[in-house]
Amino acid sequence: MKMKNSIYSTDGISLSGNITADLNDICRDFPSDKIFVLLDQNTSENCRKRLELLSTVPEQNVIIIQDGESNKNLDQVQAVWQFLGEQMADRKSLLVNVGGGMLTDLGGFAASTYKRGIQFINVPTTLLAMVDASVGGKTGVNFRGLKNEVGLIRQALHVFLYPPFLETLDDENLRSGFAEMLKSALIKDPQLWNDLKAFNLDARSYGDLAPLLWRSVMIKKEIVDLDPNENGIRKALNFGHTVGHALESQALHTGRKMMHGYAVAYGMSVEARLSGRFSGLTEEDRDDIIAVIRKIYGKLPEQIQQQKELIDYMRFDKKNERNQINFTLLNKIGSCEVNNFISEEDISKTLAV
Amino acid sequence: MKMKNSIYSTDGISLSGNITADLNDICRDFPSDKIFVLLDQNTSENCRKRLELLSTVPEQNVIIIQDGESNKNLDQVQAVWQFLGEQMADRKSLLVNVGGGMLTDLGGFAASTYKRGIQFINVPTTLLAMVDASVGGKTGVNFRGLKNEVGLIRQALHVFLYPPFLETLDDENLRSGFAEMLKSALIKDPQLWNDLKAFNLDARSYGDLAPLLWRSVMIKKEIVDLDPNENGIRKALNFGHTVGHALESQALHTGRKMMHGYAVAYGMSVEARLSGRFSGLTEEDRDDIIAVIRKIYGKLPEQIQQQKELIDYMRFDKKNERNQINFTLLNKIGSCEVNNFISEEDISKTLAV
Repeated sequence: MKMKNSIYSTDGISLSGNITADLNDICRDFPSDKIFVLLDQNTSENCRKRLELLSTVPEQNVIIIQDGESNKNLDQVQAVWQFLGEQMADRKSLLVNVGGGMLTDLGGFAASTYKRGIQFINVPTTLLAMVDASVGGKTGVNFRGLKNEVGLIRQALHVFLYPPFLETLDDENLRSGFAEMLKSALIKDPQLWNDLKAFNLDARSYGDLAPLLWRSVMIKKEIVDLDPNENGIRKALNFGHTVGHALESQALHTGRKMMHGYAVAYGMSVEARLSGRFSGLTEEDRDDIIAVIRKIYGKLPEQIQQQKELIDYMRFDKKNERNQINFTLLNKIGSCEVNNFISEEDISKTLAV
Repeated sequence: MKMKNSIYSTDGISLSGNITADLNDICRDFPSDKIFVLLDQNTSENCRKRLELLSTVPEQNVIIIQDGESNKNLDQVQAVWQFLGEQMADRKSLLVNVGGGMLTDLGGFAASTYKRGIQFINVPTTLLAMVDASVGGKTGVNFRGLKNEVGLIRQALHVFLYPPFLETLDDENLRSGFAEMLKSALIKDPQLWNDLKAFNLDARSYGDLAPLLWRSVMIKKEIVDLDPNENGIRKALNFGHTVGHALESQALHTGRKMMHGYAVAYGMSVEARLSGRFSGLTEEDRDDIIAVIRKIYGKLPEQIQQQKELIDYMRFDKKNERNQINFTLLNKIGSCEVNNFISEEDISKTLAV
């Protein structure tokens, strides 16, 4: 569906210039008492007032859950299922997920499994969720300390990107989302890489960021459309993520803070080094990547040196096959190859540098 | 995939003459340490010895869960997820579900959501699971006392029907499965209805039952293939199920015993009466249906008279839309229409007869 009030729009996703008009357009197909809204404490406080739709949805159709990665769990999914059941949501109901990636992942999973699946739309409120989590249909929650261990792939009915929400973000959250934009560029678009390098994050110019954001999202969408179930080329999106997810799992396990984008950025730095050794990335490109990441995200965290522990986490990575650890690596900036199975010894050597 | 050792075989489903050979054929595509088997206490005791495959799967790859409808819950799903995680199941793993409908529904759901979905095959061991649960991709568990409140639609890689398992069933379980065969006939195939009426259940002749079983399953498969997500014609399969599910929910809630097929049979009897009033079923056909059901399943249970309570349960039925209770009704034997929304007053009157 293309949305007429959007600045950019393609099948299933828009960059909206008027979120109220866009939401009203799409909600018209659902009975008003069958539209439900999922917020977290944070979006309830900071984003709700920007969504006029929410004033027309009856208060009893709004559920507010706890925010934060440690609350991305089955208990909260059960709370959503219970809420939907108590409010008599049926199969023709719609769940509107408004929040960061934790919320859109969890809400998408709850909707996709309630009564064997109801429709949902995503209104991501963080840059990370706009460029990453809300597009591509990956839903899920953490389980036994493992990221997204439980979930499924189901596309949202529509995803609305609304740049004014970015005004609610602090610098760290902006940088976290920017990492996934860098990744899109590195795997597919050298021109976008140059444009992102030239972009001044500290200026916080959302007008300038919007077209770059849209280009990043279109790279992701193009890849996901080719391979929605991640049997092949979709794995391109995992560049930086094998190391990144291990850093996140470790942080989740030890109660340390590690934002997804920062973990992916550090992961890209390490995996650029792996790419230099195993997939033909030139020294110049490798050093360019490492320098850009260091400039924006600072030094690699100390945990990179806890090689054995990190590799233990990598062993549990969903991308692995036949007990081998799987990487997406770069050939050059703007081009990648999937399914590089690297030995633990070689990973360890690279981490140790 | 068609299986060469099957008596009947079509895409995704076989009636197997040699279950060991068939399972070996399909398992060849998976690393042997990545094949996992889900049993319940009952199938572990009664069916395991018939499955030679299970002797080649390492013991630590077999998980046995509790049987019974009251154990079709999230706790057991979590146990399966945890087991798969601990045994390092990855996305290329296979889960083999061996059991009744409760087990294939639960196992299908657990597999479809573990690491966003791994492949599973179903080896139903009851007649009910053979004709109903294991075909069509409906997976799920009960939640808050509501049947299959949580789940999703995902097709098994393959379903193997192996009639010798029927020897393990008691009369009640055989009758329970037979109800879904009657349903297939009533919605689609008058000749099958006549053949089922002529079949002597007490003779327990599995050679004679197998072709009837296959015809029933093919009716279901044909309908599911046209409409896998139950937006339209798949609802035909719900004949007898609006009342049937209410009877089951009530029984689940009150701890009473109510087998699925019996509930559907009683439901078909009531819904045949509704069909007489609202969808043109002749008196003769209606009485034929009521008499056949009475002969096999006995008198309607007393709960049918607790109209208000039953209607309360119907209100929570997944098939409802816009708060209206939805029935599939017959025009004649072998033909049905979906989406009959009947008022609670009219349901009440029909239940009261």
